Amino acid sequence: MSVVVGNPKPRSRTLALAEAVAARVADATGATVEPTVDLCDHADDLFKWPHEGLAALNDAVAASDFAVFASPTYKAAYTGLLKAFLDRYPSNGLAGVTAVPVMTGGSEAHTMAVDTALRPVLVELGASVPTRGLFLPMTLMDERDALIDRWAQDNLPPRSRLGLGSRSEAQR
Amino acid sequence: MSVVVGNPKPRSRTLALAEAVAARVADATGATVEPTVDLCDHADDLFKWPHEGLAALNDAVAASDFAVFASPTYKAAYTGLLKAFLDRYPSNGLAGVTAVPVMTGGSEAHTMAVDTALRPVLVELGASVPTRGLFLPMTLMDERDALIDRWAQDNLPPRSRLGLGSRSEAQR
Amino acid sequence: MSVVVGNPKPRSRTLALAEAVAARVADATGATVEPTVDLCDHADDLFKWPHEGLAALNDAVAASDFAVFASPTYKAAYTGLLKAFLDRYPSNGLAGVTAVPVMTGGSEAHTMAVDTALRPVLVELGASVPTRGLFLPMTLMDERDALIDRWAQDNLPPRSRLGLGSRSEAQR
Amino acid sequence: MSVVVGNPKPRSRTLALAEAVAARVADATGATVEPTVDLCDHADDLFKWPHEGLAALNDAVAASDFAVFASPTYKAAYTGLLKAFLDRYPSNGLAGVTAVPVMTGGSEAHTMAVDTALRPVLVELGASVPTRGLFLPMTLMDERDALIDRWAQDNLPPRSRLGLGSRSEAQR
Repeated sequence: MSVVVGNPKPRSRTLALAEAVAARVADATGATVEPTVDLCDHADDLFKWPHEGLAALNDAVAASDFAVFASPTYKAAYTGLLKAFLDRYPSNGLAGVTAVPVMTGGSEAHTMAVDTALRPVLVELGASVPTRGLFLPMTLMDERDALIDRWAQDNLPPRSRLGLGSRSEAQR
Repeated sequence: MSVVVGNPKPRSRTLALAEAVAARVADATGATVEPTVDLCDHADDLFKWPHEGLAALNDAVAASDFAVFASPTYKAAYTGLLKAFLDRYPSNGLAGVTAVPVMTGGSEAHTMAVDTALRPVLVELGASVPTRGLFLPMTLMDERDALIDRWAQDNLPPRSRLGLGSRSEAQR
Repeated sequence: MSVVVGNPKPRSRTLALAEAVAARVADATGATVEPTVDLCDHADDLFKWPHEGLAALNDAVAASDFAVFASPTYKAAYTGLLKAFLDRYPSNGLAGVTAVPVMTGGSEAHTMAVDTALRPVLVELGASVPTRGLFLPMTLMDERDALIDRWAQDNLPPRSRLGLGSRSEAQR
Repeated sequence: MSVVVGNPKPRSRTLALAEAVAARVADATGATVEPTVDLCDHADDLFKWPHEGLAALNDAVAASDFAVFASPTYKAAYTGLLKAFLDRYPSNGLAGVTAVPVMTGGSEAHTMAVDTALRPVLVELGASVPTRGLFLPMTLMDERDALIDRWAQDNLPPRSRLGLGSRSEAQR
């Protein structure tokens, strides 16, 4: 499982949230979490073509079974930093990946951005996005773990969300 | 598996498409397809509360493992007819359902509506939407089956889209 | 100026908000506000074609210089009731109308719905939507007038929002 | 009037389209078109804070009466390049600007991106976006000028789109 974070600030709260979500998905699926890709470490190279280091990062994420894509909310959407990384994929570049969109934001008013802005980009790249996205407003940062718990309970197996596998299989 | 069609015209091409998609999902998952809910048959009751017949329909769809929700494109979005039916659900009323959004449209220009308009409503209702939505422009009606084939190949197991089940499980 | 409200409950708080916004737009533009179209009064006819009474309502709104379209938030979007009315327009049926989208909602989390769900439908119908949409969460109902004030200050002339008229003209 | 282009390729067809649209808006409004900001010329600096040159560009655009924002379609949305520039604005950083969203794309299927992806970002930044966005698929590049003509006829004065100015004023 990969974790990709598009926050211009290194080691951000967005990153901490993404890693907490990844740990929960790993628990539910048995996947192993790879070291996080903190895109601010690669900002200088994102608009260079070709670029060997970035190509390797893109490939590693595309080869994952699962990937968490996380961004703070800038202008009611994901950051240009995250989008610049996603733009480097060819058409359907995330086919075969089950993606989990995660966003943090200054206010609850941007909650919908995770499902109206970030999710469509992942779907367009061919990823499967079976869960609801997770949005965490900074005002609720203290309740972070409780909110992840609730999201996990609603969205992760064994409860039922095994996508196109039948529900009975999911509960085996 | 349920099929719900929100076309004001009875027995529409939208309905035929929805049923063809449902048959394909049934093949891939072993689900049994229930008789289609053609909402134009219930248009007179959609704004009546409470309504026993509609409550039974809502419940039957919510109890399905899978559901195809289909609509023609009106004003770059799903129809009011379909939305009026979905509005009757309580919060998270489609939790536990794996939903497939399907739309037909007059022109290819509205392709994105299935993933920017219809999908977010299903996600908001708590459904899992692991596949890409399927949009069929009327101009490509002759290629319908080939387009469904391609969509199925990209989105249905055994290829890999078992949502949060691990890919290896999906390929067993 | 027209006011169209798509709340299944008659004389709703959504309607009161829509009328308050309309009054403010009228102050800024000199337009006269026509009696509100409360769509719950017409719910039984919305799926009947043709229908003389609804055709007259559709025409009256389309002939307005300005129109406020208001809806509560159902499933993170406008209601099927409002959409069913808008679906009755032909392509570009609101050309020439300057539209103001307004939504109420149970929580601030749906704030973006007014600009991601309702606005695109109005734009698709050919309306001009120069202002930001106004979303009022029920939790802030007590601050309604202050929020309208702030929205008006940010979005209505003379401050500058004369659309494609030049800013200097707007300030004359 | 400013023109901002977010195409990683210099002097792109997106840029040519943006300038053609700007010329048309200038004709309709009397605005003077400033030299185009071709963001690929600034890609190396977009993730540097602070940056004097970019701050000057951001300020110049924000001071414009009108601005055309143009992007090719990447992953069914605007580019990370354009978003990275827009991310540098503070909240409401485009207040007072009348913005025109413009996108090019490989296929007509992404037509809606200009109004579902790019427009909401401009609205969030406080810009007024009274016109429909203009999307040009590469397949229709030969009909570019005819499509701009049609868009201008539908969206620019004197036909009526003077935003919140009354229609009669618009026709004076």
